[in-house]
Amino acid sequence: MSGDDFMLDARLKADTHHVAPLPLCDVLLMNDARYSWLILVPRITGCVEIFDLPDEARTTLWQEIQRAATVLREVAPCDKLNIGALGNIVRQLHVHVVARKEGDAAWPGPVWGHGRAEAYGDEALHVLMQRLRQKLL
Amino acid sequence: MSGDDFMLDARLKADTHHVAPLPLCDVLLMNDARYSWLILVPRITGCVEIFDLPDEARTTLWQEIQRAATVLREVAPCDKLNIGALGNIVRQLHVHVVARKEGDAAWPGPVWGHGRAEAYGDEALHVLMQRLRQKLL
Repeated sequence: MSGDDFMLDARLKADTHHVAPLPLCDVLLMNDARYSWLILVPRITGCVEIFDLPDEARTTLWQEIQRAATVLREVAPCDKLNIGALGNIVRQLHVHVVARKEGDAAWPGPVWGHGRAEAYGDEALHVLMQRLRQKLL
Repeated sequence: MSGDDFMLDARLKADTHHVAPLPLCDVLLMNDARYSWLILVPRITGCVEIFDLPDEARTTLWQEIQRAATVLREVAPCDKLNIGALGNIVRQLHVHVVARKEGDAAWPGPVWGHGRAEAYGDEALHVLMQRLRQKLL
């Protein structure tokens, strides 16, 4: 359960851009321009469920979810936040924080498994990453 | 934001059975025998996002999610818990805790918006409610 040998799941790595490290979690941006979508991954090896985390880390995770959600909402104003820990496909513990807008590609359904991701263009990605990092770090 | 005039959303009420009151949340069972699926609803009027809750209530919510998830996993052994706060359709703050099994109706996708609910039969519902209440209360 040490952070020293932590390795991000290969699929999470392939599907996202690394935004910033918080004390417990790496904050990733899903490479899907249809939604503003962050993923928090605690850098602790071997956790699958939130409740696998030690108590102190779990408290920190809730705080970091709140911090990420607050920043996301500032950067990407939305009608509703969706927060979820699913992990049916990727078992490494990760928490989704998604800014939803009425009428977005999956609205009002969930984003997971809906259609195909649309990668960000370079410029849009650069601007978004910069804004997220400024507020998160 | 007082609990005195709290009214459960009409759709949540129609889709669920009331399992038990915890100190903050009512625990509901989704009337869908395809999954073992609890919903926690803080009895505080006017909250939409988890982050609308006062700090103390938010801490209690995390604790009650953990308690509900632990009980659910005991009563309905599963391969993965799915925990989510979406609220795109029903805006009253509510948190889903779903026991997922590999090969269940929506696996590995999310349960929300997938197909039609299949209501519990009377006997199965009675047994499940009793087991949940014994462990929750």
